[in-house]
Amino acid sequence: MGENVGAAARAMKNFGLSELHLIAPRMEWPNDRAQMLASGAGDILAAAKIHPTAAEALAGFNLVLATTARGRDVLKEIHTPEAAARRLRAAASDGIRTALLFGGERAGLDNDELSLCDAVITIPTAEFSSLNLGQAVLLLGYEWLKSADTTPPVRTRPTIGVPAGRGELIGLFEHLEQELDAAQFFFPPAKREAMVRNVRAMILASRLTDQQARTIRGMIVALVRNKYRGKV
Amino acid sequence: MGENVGAAARAMKNFGLSELHLIAPRMEWPNDRAQMLASGAGDILAAAKIHPTAAEALAGFNLVLATTARGRDVLKEIHTPEAAARRLRAAASDGIRTALLFGGERAGLDNDELSLCDAVITIPTAEFSSLNLGQAVLLLGYEWLKSADTTPPVRTRPTIGVPAGRGELIGLFEHLEQELDAAQFFFPPAKREAMVRNVRAMILASRLTDQQARTIRGMIVALVRNKYRGKV
Repeated sequence: MGENVGAAARAMKNFGLSELHLIAPRMEWPNDRAQMLASGAGDILAAAKIHPTAAEALAGFNLVLATTARGRDVLKEIHTPEAAARRLRAAASDGIRTALLFGGERAGLDNDELSLCDAVITIPTAEFSSLNLGQAVLLLGYEWLKSADTTPPVRTRPTIGVPAGRGELIGLFEHLEQELDAAQFFFPPAKREAMVRNVRAMILASRLTDQQARTIRGMIVALVRNKYRGKV
Repeated sequence: MGENVGAAARAMKNFGLSELHLIAPRMEWPNDRAQMLASGAGDILAAAKIHPTAAEALAGFNLVLATTARGRDVLKEIHTPEAAARRLRAAASDGIRTALLFGGERAGLDNDELSLCDAVITIPTAEFSSLNLGQAVLLLGYEWLKSADTTPPVRTRPTIGVPAGRGELIGLFEHLEQELDAAQFFFPPAKREAMVRNVRAMILASRLTDQQARTIRGMIVALVRNKYRGKV
């Protein structure tokens, strides 16, 4: 269906895959529905090449991995999407022409088509498994991009990621504890030490920046303001 | 749109996510289009809970990560989908109620909604970035499943993965080399040794099983059959 080819083109563009080859498409081509679903990826559709058979489509490639849901019947290595992406990326870096082959919506790839491929890929799913073409392309594209992506697993904005200086934190601790002493918050007095340790741990666990430590001190000042005003 | 919610439910079911909560949906509910796109995941739609606000939807959860395309504006840790899935999986294993929060199709999540979440997730993409709700749920669901998936990166069927015994291979080498000698394939004779080494390396590189080694011997027998018949 045109929709699936459009969604596949859009998925490709999201993850840096560029060349679309269609094998014996049963739909009209060019296809309006494909164009609609591709939204910003119209250039990929416009440059798509049509081939009558898998053999002709694959002739120009040197490493071909095929997605299939029927991993058990296959006499080849079965890769996870992640392992496949790493293998393709390594080959592409050596200038080798690599391709991913996807099956049609209903039947998938037949055994003749699979026999032209170096290895197959199965996408791990729960017991329920119902991925369409666009979704399969999306997941493989995602792993392809990830295989060269250097984004750290967890990051923060550089300006907000700097933990507060100990001096700033100690200033906050002392300011807070002084006001809590004045408010007789630590009760009974014998437990003061343990309670102070708890409060300090709580503050440290929130990994404040200097600015955030100052903000909390401002909040403390604001919270006690009326209280002192009454007494002055 | 109903389609997106249906696609999200189907994506969830593929990857073992089960509870769907909808925040102030603008569509009719229950929704026919959602039902159609969900195909086998109708049970997830039927059990979906509707909440008027993000605050009410999230009240029952202890760890909430939100997807956002606008990582740069956020004063929190930014996770890759993979790191987020690992964090959620670890928490869920400890019995902690975890949630993934996704934004609406157009506007995404607003800052108020993000302020209720522990951290955010951005999906790495190419410069072109246009992922809809169903696709975002698909990718996060995929990483969720992967975070507990023990499939080896590369595998073969146990019965076909066993490399041929050396005896079987040596039998093949000697059979082939004897027929090639008879056919005067190795020429000039001074190069015979190097050529034999090449052929053996080629055969070893294809990592034959016992059965495949026997198949090749059968092919050799078949290929030379007519030749000898002429002479007998």
